[in-house]
Amino acid sequence: MYPVISISRQFGSGGHSIGEKVAKQLNIPFWDGEIVTHAAEECGYAKELIEEQGESTSSASKWFDISTASAMYFQSPQDEIFLAQRKVILDAAKKGPCVIVGRCSDYVLRNAEVRCLNVLIHADMEHRIARVLERYGDITNIDVKKRIQKKDKQRRTYYRYYTDQQWGAYSNYDIALDSGMLGEETCVHLICELAQKMDI
Amino acid sequence: MYPVISISRQFGSGGHSIGEKVAKQLNIPFWDGEIVTHAAEECGYAKELIEEQGESTSSASKWFDISTASAMYFQSPQDEIFLAQRKVILDAAKKGPCVIVGRCSDYVLRNAEVRCLNVLIHADMEHRIARVLERYGDITNIDVKKRIQKKDKQRRTYYRYYTDQQWGAYSNYDIALDSGMLGEETCVHLICELAQKMDI
Repeated sequence: MYPVISISRQFGSGGHSIGEKVAKQLNIPFWDGEIVTHAAEECGYAKELIEEQGESTSSASKWFDISTASAMYFQSPQDEIFLAQRKVILDAAKKGPCVIVGRCSDYVLRNAEVRCLNVLIHADMEHRIARVLERYGDITNIDVKKRIQKKDKQRRTYYRYYTDQQWGAYSNYDIALDSGMLGEETCVHLICELAQKMDI
Repeated sequence: MYPVISISRQFGSGGHSIGEKVAKQLNIPFWDGEIVTHAAEECGYAKELIEEQGESTSSASKWFDISTASAMYFQSPQDEIFLAQRKVILDAAKKGPCVIVGRCSDYVLRNAEVRCLNVLIHADMEHRIARVLERYGDITNIDVKKRIQKKDKQRRTYYRYYTDQQWGAYSNYDIALDSGMLGEETCVHLICELAQKMDI
Protein backbone atom coordinates (compact mmCIF):
# COMPACT_ATOMS: atom_id res chain seq x y z
CA MET A 1 0.00 0.00 0.00
CA TYR A 2 1.28 3.45 -0.93
CA PRO A 3 1.67 6.09 1.79
CA VAL A 4 -0.55 9.15 2.03
CA ILE A 5 1.32 11.89 0.15
CA SER A 6 1.06 15.37 1.62
CA ILE A 7 2.25 18.15 -0.68
CA SER A 8 3.08 21.58 0.72
CA ARG A 9 3.76 24.11 -2.00
CA GLN A 10 4.62 27.69 -2.75
CA PHE A 11 2.04 29.52 -4.85
CA GLY A 12 3.06 29.22 -8.50
CA SER A 13 5.49 26.33 -7.93
CA GLY A 14 3.28 23.78 -9.69
CA GLY A 15 2.54 21.80 -6.53
CA HIS A 16 -1.12 21.32 -7.47
CA SER A 17 -0.30 20.05 -10.93
CA ILE A 18 2.52 17.81 -9.65
CA GLY A 19 0.21 16.33 -7.00
CA GLU A 20 -2.51 15.71 -9.58
CA LYS A 21 -0.12 13.87 -11.88
CA VAL A 22 1.31 11.80 -9.02
CA ALA A 23 -2.22 10.76 -7.98
CA LYS A 24 -3.10 9.86 -11.57
CA GLN A 25 0.08 7.86 -12.07
CA LEU A 26 -0.36 5.95 -8.80
CA ASN A 27 -4.10 5.66 -9.39
CA ILE A 28 -5.04 7.06 -5.97
CA PRO A 29 -7.47 9.89 -5.00
CA PHE A 30 -6.37 13.51 -5.29
CA TRP A 31 -7.46 16.08 -2.70
CA ASP A 32 -7.07 19.79 -3.31
CA GLY A 33 -10.25 21.61 -4.39
CA GLU A 34 -12.10 18.49 -3.23
CA ILE A 35 -11.19 19.42 0.37
CA VAL A 36 -13.15 22.65 -0.09
CA THR A 37 -16.28 20.89 -1.38
CA HIS A 38 -16.29 18.41 1.48
CA ALA A 39 -15.42 21.05 4.11
CA ALA A 40 -18.36 23.12 2.89
CA GLU A 41 -20.67 20.19 3.59
CA GLU A 42 -18.99 19.69 6.95
CA CYS A 43 -19.23 23.23 8.35
CA GLY A 44 -22.04 24.77 6.28
CA TYR A 45 -20.05 27.73 4.94
CA ALA A 46 -20.16 28.52 1.23
CA LYS A 47 -17.51 26.92 -0.98
CA GLU A 48 -16.51 30.38 -2.20
CA LEU A 49 -15.80 31.55 1.36
CA ILE A 50 -13.74 28.45 2.10
CA GLU A 51 -11.82 28.88 -1.16
CA GLU A 52 -11.05 32.47 -0.27
CA GLN A 53 -10.35 31.95 3.43
CA GLY A 54 -9.17 28.33 3.43
CA GLU A 55 -5.47 29.11 3.72
CA SER A 56 -5.40 32.57 5.25
CA THR A 57 -5.94 33.85 8.76
CA SER A 58 -7.50 37.27 8.23
CA SER A 59 -10.53 36.51 10.38
CA ALA A 60 -9.05 33.83 12.63
CA SER A 61 -9.70 33.95 16.33
CA LYS A 62 -6.91 35.35 18.43
CA TRP A 63 -7.47 32.67 21.03
CA PHE A 64 -7.60 29.59 18.83
CA ASP A 65 -5.86 26.58 20.32
CA ILE A 66 -5.93 23.32 18.38
CA SER A 67 -5.86 21.30 21.62
CA THR A 68 -9.12 22.83 22.82
CA ALA A 69 -10.62 23.21 19.37
CA SER A 70 -13.44 20.78 19.96
CA ALA A 71 -14.75 22.90 22.82
CA MET A 72 -16.09 25.42 20.28
CA TYR A 73 -15.08 28.38 22.38
CA PHE A 74 -13.71 31.51 20.75
CA GLN A 75 -13.96 30.04 17.28
CA SER A 76 -14.09 32.41 14.35
CA PRO A 77 -15.52 31.27 10.99
CA GLN A 78 -11.90 30.88 9.96
CA ASP A 79 -11.24 28.45 12.80
CA GLU A 80 -14.35 26.47 11.91
CA ILE A 81 -13.17 26.24 8.31
CA PHE A 82 -9.76 25.02 9.51
CA LEU A 83 -11.41 22.33 11.64
CA ALA A 84 -13.73 21.26 8.82
CA GLN A 85 -10.78 20.96 6.42
CA ARG A 86 -8.81 19.10 9.09
CA LYS A 87 -11.62 16.57 9.45
CA VAL A 88 -11.83 16.10 5.67
CA ILE A 89 -8.05 15.50 5.53
CA LEU A 90 -8.10 12.98 8.39
CA ASP A 91 -11.09 11.13 6.92
CA ALA A 92 -9.48 11.00 3.47
CA ALA A 93 -6.15 9.74 4.85
CA LYS A 94 -7.80 7.08 6.95
CA LYS A 95 -9.60 5.67 3.90
CA GLY A 96 -6.27 4.83 2.26
CA PRO A 97 -3.46 6.16 0.08
CA CYS A 98 -4.12 9.54 -1.55
CA VAL A 99 -2.46 12.84 -2.43
CA ILE A 100 -3.43 15.84 -0.28
CA VAL A 101 -2.33 19.37 -1.18
CA GLY A 102 -1.69 22.11 1.38
CA ARG A 103 -3.91 23.14 4.30
CA CYS A 104 -1.30 22.11 6.92
CA SER A 105 -1.92 18.48 5.92
CA ASP A 106 1.64 17.48 6.90
CA TYR A 107 0.97 18.76 10.41
CA VAL A 108 -2.62 17.50 10.63
CA LEU A 109 -1.48 13.99 9.69
CA ARG A 110 1.62 13.95 11.91
CA ASN A 111 -0.12 12.38 14.88
CA ALA A 112 -2.72 10.44 12.95
CA GLU A 113 -1.94 6.77 12.57
CA VAL A 114 -1.19 7.09 8.89
CA ARG A 115 2.01 6.42 6.93
CA CYS A 116 2.90 9.67 5.22
CA LEU A 117 5.33 10.95 2.62
CA ASN A 118 5.75 14.66 3.25
CA VAL A 119 6.76 16.68 0.22
CA LEU A 120 7.60 20.37 -0.26
CA ILE A 121 7.52 21.92 -3.73
CA HIS A 122 9.19 25.31 -4.17
CA ALA A 123 10.67 27.37 -6.99
CA ASP A 124 12.41 30.68 -7.53
CA MET A 125 10.35 33.81 -8.20
CA GLU A 126 11.15 33.89 -11.92
CA HIS A 127 9.75 30.41 -12.55
CA ARG A 128 6.73 31.11 -10.38
CA ILE A 129 5.88 34.34 -12.20
CA ALA A 130 6.15 32.54 -15.55
CA ARG A 131 3.90 29.75 -14.32
CA VAL A 132 1.24 32.04 -12.83
CA LEU A 133 1.19 34.11 -16.04
CA GLU A 134 0.77 30.95 -18.09
CA ARG A 135 -2.04 29.71 -15.88
CA TYR A 136 -3.96 32.89 -15.10
CA GLY A 137 -3.01 34.94 -18.14
CA ASP A 138 -2.73 38.57 -18.84
CA ILE A 139 -1.56 40.58 -15.81
CA THR A 140 1.59 42.68 -15.61
CA ASN A 141 4.67 41.11 -14.05
CA ILE A 142 4.58 43.48 -11.09
CA ASP A 143 1.05 42.46 -10.16
CA VAL A 144 1.91 38.78 -10.38
CA LYS A 145 4.95 39.17 -8.15
CA LYS A 146 2.91 41.04 -5.57
CA ARG A 147 0.18 38.41 -5.74
CA ILE A 148 2.71 35.62 -5.22
CA GLN A 149 4.27 37.42 -2.26
CA LYS A 150 0.84 37.98 -0.73
CA LYS A 151 -0.12 34.32 -1.15
CA ASP A 152 3.22 33.24 0.36
CA LYS A 153 2.61 35.45 3.34
CA GLN A 154 -0.97 34.20 3.79
CA ARG A 155 0.06 30.54 3.67
CA ARG A 156 3.04 31.15 5.96
CA THR A 157 0.86 32.96 8.48
CA TYR A 158 -1.89 30.35 8.23
CA TYR A 159 0.60 27.54 8.84
CA ARG A 160 2.26 29.39 11.69
CA TYR A 161 -1.07 30.19 13.28
CA TYR A 162 -2.56 26.70 13.24
CA THR A 163 0.61 24.64 13.80
CA ASP A 164 2.82 27.02 15.80
CA GLN A 165 5.65 26.04 13.45
CA GLN A 166 7.53 27.68 10.63
CA TRP A 167 6.26 26.95 7.11
CA GLY A 168 8.92 25.44 4.89
CA ALA A 169 11.29 24.27 7.66
CA TYR A 170 13.22 21.45 5.95
CA SER A 171 12.87 19.17 8.95
CA ASN A 172 9.12 18.91 8.29
CA TYR A 173 9.59 17.23 4.90
CA ASP A 174 10.93 13.88 3.76
CA ILE A 175 11.76 15.45 0.42
CA ALA A 176 11.82 19.06 -0.78
CA LEU A 177 12.10 19.78 -4.50
CA ASP A 178 12.83 22.90 -6.54
CA SER A 179 10.36 22.48 -9.41
CA GLY A 180 11.84 25.46 -11.27
CA MET A 181 15.26 23.85 -11.38
CA LEU A 182 14.22 20.20 -11.74
CA GLY A 183 11.09 20.58 -13.87
CA GLU A 184 7.60 19.29 -13.15
CA GLU A 185 8.03 15.88 -14.76
CA THR A 186 11.15 15.08 -12.73
CA CYS A 187 9.34 16.03 -9.52
CA VAL A 188 6.41 13.75 -10.43
CA HIS A 189 8.83 10.94 -11.26
CA LEU A 190 10.79 11.24 -7.98
CA ILE A 191 7.67 11.39 -5.80
CA CYS A 192 6.10 8.38 -7.55
CA GLU A 193 9.36 6.48 -7.19
CA LEU A 194 9.48 7.17 -3.45
CA ALA A 195 5.83 6.18 -3.02
CA GLN A 196 6.58 2.93 -4.85
CA LYS A 197 9.57 2.26 -2.60
CA MET A 198 7.27 2.77 0.39
CA ASP A 199 4.63 0.45 -1.08
CA ILE A 200 4.31 -2.34 1.46
CA MET B 1 28.52 15.48 -18.46
CA TYR B 2 27.20 15.19 -14.90
CA PRO B 3 26.77 18.35 -12.83
CA VAL B 4 28.96 19.18 -9.84
CA ILE B 5 27.08 17.83 -6.82
CA SER B 6 27.30 19.94 -3.68
CA ILE B 7 26.09 18.21 -0.52
CA SER B 8 25.22 20.21 2.59
CA ARG B 9 24.55 18.00 5.57
CA GLN B 10 23.64 17.94 9.22
CA PHE B 11 26.21 16.24 11.44
CA GLY B 12 25.21 12.60 11.82
CA SER B 13 22.82 12.59 8.85
CA GLY B 14 25.07 10.41 6.71
CA GLY B 15 25.80 13.14 4.16
CA HIS B 16 29.47 12.15 3.90
CA SER B 17 28.68 8.50 3.29
CA ILE B 18 25.87 9.33 0.83
CA GLY B 19 28.18 11.65 -1.10
CA GLU B 20 30.94 9.04 -1.21
CA LYS B 21 28.56 6.40 -2.59
CA VAL B 22 27.14 8.83 -5.18
CA ALA B 23 30.68 9.66 -6.36
CA LYS B 24 31.58 5.98 -6.58
CA GLN B 25 28.42 5.10 -8.46
CA LEU B 26 28.86 7.94 -10.96
CA ASN B 27 32.60 7.35 -11.10
CA ILE B 28 33.50 10.97 -10.36
CA PRO B 29 35.92 12.47 -7.75
CA PHE B 30 34.78 12.86 -4.14
CA TRP B 31 35.83 15.89 -2.09
CA ASP B 32 35.42 15.98 1.67
CA GLY B 33 38.58 15.28 3.69
CA GLU B 34 40.46 15.85 0.41
CA ILE B 35 39.51 19.54 0.64
CA VAL B 36 41.44 19.72 3.91
CA THR B 37 44.60 18.13 2.46
CA HIS B 38 44.62 20.49 -0.52
CA ALA B 39 43.71 23.55 1.57
CA ALA B 40 46.66 22.76 3.87
CA GLU B 41 49.00 22.91 0.88
CA GLU B 42 47.29 26.09 -0.25
CA CYS B 43 47.51 28.12 2.96
CA GLY B 44 50.28 26.43 4.88
CA TYR B 45 48.28 25.61 8.02
CA ALA B 46 48.40 22.14 9.50
CA LYS B 47 45.76 19.66 8.30
CA GLU B 48 44.72 19.09 11.93
CA LEU B 49 44.00 22.80 12.42
CA ILE B 50 41.97 22.93 9.21
CA GLU B 51 40.07 19.82 10.22
CA GLU B 52 39.25 21.36 13.57
CA GLN B 53 38.52 24.88 12.37
CA GLY B 54 37.40 24.21 8.81
CA GLU B 55 33.69 24.62 9.48
CA SER B 56 33.60 26.74 12.59
CA THR B 57 34.12 30.44 13.19
CA SER B 58 35.62 30.55 16.68
CA SER B 59 38.65 32.57 15.57
CA ALA B 60 37.17 34.25 12.50
CA SER B 61 37.86 37.92 11.90
CA LYS B 62 35.05 40.25 12.84
CA TRP B 63 35.68 42.31 9.73
CA PHE B 64 35.82 39.57 7.14
CA ASP B 65 34.13 40.46 3.87
CA ILE B 66 34.23 37.94 1.05
CA SER B 67 34.20 40.72 -1.56
CA THR B 68 37.45 42.19 -0.26
CA ALA B 69 38.93 38.88 0.82
CA SER B 70 41.79 39.00 -1.63
CA ALA B 71 43.08 42.22 -0.08
CA MET B 72 44.44 40.23 2.87
CA TYR B 73 43.38 42.84 5.39
CA PHE B 74 41.93 41.81 8.74
CA GLN B 75 42.16 38.14 7.94
CA SER B 76 42.26 35.70 10.82
CA PRO B 77 43.71 32.19 10.33
CA GLN B 78 40.08 31.11 10.12
CA ASP B 79 39.43 33.43 7.19
CA GLU B 80 42.57 32.20 5.43
CA ILE B 81 41.41 28.63 5.87
CA PHE B 82 38.01 29.56 4.42
CA LEU B 83 39.67 31.15 1.40
CA ALA B 84 42.01 28.19 0.89
CA GLN B 85 39.07 25.76 1.02
CA ARG B 86 37.10 28.04 -1.32
CA LYS B 87 39.94 27.93 -3.86
CA VAL B 88 40.17 24.13 -3.62
CA ILE B 89 36.39 23.86 -4.20
CA LEU B 90 36.45 26.19 -7.21
CA ASP B 91 39.47 24.42 -8.74
CA ALA B 92 37.88 21.00 -8.23
CA ALA B 93 34.56 22.10 -9.75
CA LYS B 94 36.21 23.67 -12.77
CA LYS B 95 38.04 20.43 -13.55
CA GLY B 96 34.71 18.63 -14.08
CA PRO B 97 31.90 16.73 -12.39
CA CYS B 98 32.56 15.76 -8.75
CA VAL B 99 30.86 15.51 -5.37
CA ILE B 100 31.79 18.19 -2.82
CA VAL B 101 30.66 17.96 0.82
CA GLY B 102 29.98 20.99 3.02
CA ARG B 103 32.18 24.06 3.50
CA CYS B 104 29.59 26.43 1.98
CA SER B 105 30.24 24.77 -1.39
CA ASP B 106 26.68 25.52 -2.60
CA TYR B 107 27.32 29.21 -1.99
CA VAL B 108 30.92 29.21 -3.24
CA LEU B 109 29.82 27.62 -6.53
CA ARG B 110 26.71 29.79 -7.01
CA ASN B 111 28.44 32.41 -9.08
CA ALA B 112 31.07 30.16 -10.61
CA GLU B 113 30.33 29.10 -14.17
CA VAL B 114 29.59 25.54 -13.16
CA ARG B 115 26.40 23.47 -13.48
CA CYS B 116 25.48 22.38 -9.96
CA LEU B 117 23.05 20.06 -8.24
CA ASN B 118 22.59 21.38 -4.72
CA VAL B 119 21.59 18.76 -2.17
CA LEU B 120 20.71 18.99 1.53
CA ILE B 121 20.80 15.87 3.71
CA HIS B 122 19.11 16.06 7.11
CA ALA B 123 17.62 13.66 9.66
CA ASP B 124 15.87 13.74 12.99
CA MET B 125 17.89 13.70 16.21
CA GLU B 126 17.12 10.05 16.99
CA HIS B 127 18.56 8.79 13.70
CA ARG B 128 21.56 11.09 14.00
CA ILE B 129 22.37 9.91 17.53
CA ALA B 130 22.16 6.27 16.39
CA ARG B 131 24.42 6.99 13.44
CA VAL B 132 27.05 8.89 15.42
CA LEU B 133 27.09 6.14 18.08
CA GLU B 134 27.57 3.54 15.35
CA ARG B 135 30.37 5.51 13.75
CA TYR B 136 32.27 6.88 16.73
CA GLY B 137 31.33 4.28 19.32
CA ASP B 138 31.00 4.27 23.02
CA ILE B 139 29.77 7.62 24.40
CA THR B 140 26.58 8.17 26.39
CA ASN B 141 23.52 9.39 24.52
CA ILE B 142 23.56 12.73 26.30
CA ASP B 143 27.10 13.49 25.16
CA VAL B 144 26.29 12.57 21.59
CA LYS B 145 23.22 14.80 21.52
CA LYS B 146 25.24 17.72 22.89
CA ARG B 147 27.99 17.06 20.37
CA ILE B 148 25.49 17.04 17.50
CA GLN B 149 23.89 20.27 18.70
CA LYS B 150 27.31 21.91 18.98
CA LYS B 151 28.32 20.81 15.48
CA ASP B 152 24.98 22.07 14.09
CA LYS B 153 25.57 25.41 15.73
CA GLN B 154 29.14 25.63 14.43
CA ARG B 155 28.13 24.83 10.84
CA ARG B 156 25.14 27.17 10.99
CA THR B 157 27.30 29.98 12.31
CA TYR B 158 30.07 29.27 9.82
CA TYR B 159 27.61 29.33 6.91
CA ARG B 160 25.91 32.46 8.17
CA TYR B 161 29.25 34.18 8.70
CA TYR B 162 30.76 33.50 5.30
CA THR B 163 27.61 33.65 3.14
CA ASP B 164 25.37 36.05 5.07
CA GLN B 165 22.56 33.54 4.55
CA GLN B 166 20.66 31.06 6.66
CA TRP B 167 21.97 27.49 6.62
CA GLY B 168 19.32 24.99 5.52
CA ALA B 169 16.95 27.48 3.83
CA TYR B 170 15.05 25.24 1.37
CA SER B 171 15.39 27.76 -1.43
CA ASN B 172 19.16 27.10 -1.54
CA TYR B 173 18.73 23.45 -2.54
CA ASP B 174 17.41 21.68 -5.62
CA ILE B 175 16.60 18.69 -3.46
CA ALA B 176 16.51 18.19 0.32
CA LEU B 177 16.24 14.67 1.72
CA ASP B 178 15.50 13.26 5.16
CA SER B 179 17.99 10.38 5.32
CA GLY B 180 16.50 9.10 8.57
CA MET B 181 13.10 8.67 6.99
CA LEU B 182 14.17 7.62 3.48
CA GLY B 183 17.31 5.62 4.28
CA GLU B 184 20.81 6.12 2.91
CA GLU B 185 20.42 3.89 -0.15
CA THR B 186 17.29 5.72 -1.35
CA CYS B 187 19.07 9.07 -0.99
CA VAL B 188 22.02 7.76 -3.04
CA HIS B 189 19.64 6.41 -5.66
CA LEU B 190 17.65 9.67 -6.00
CA ILE B 191 20.77 11.86 -6.25
CA CYS B 192 22.37 9.58 -8.86
CA GLU B 193 19.13 9.55 -10.83
CA LEU B 194 18.97 13.36 -10.84
CA ALA B 195 22.62 13.61 -11.87
CA GLN B 196 21.92 11.20 -14.72
CA LYS B 197 18.92 13.27 -15.82
CA MET B 198 21.21 16.32 -15.87
CA ASP B 199 23.87 14.44 -17.83
CA ILE B 200 24.21 16.44 -21.07
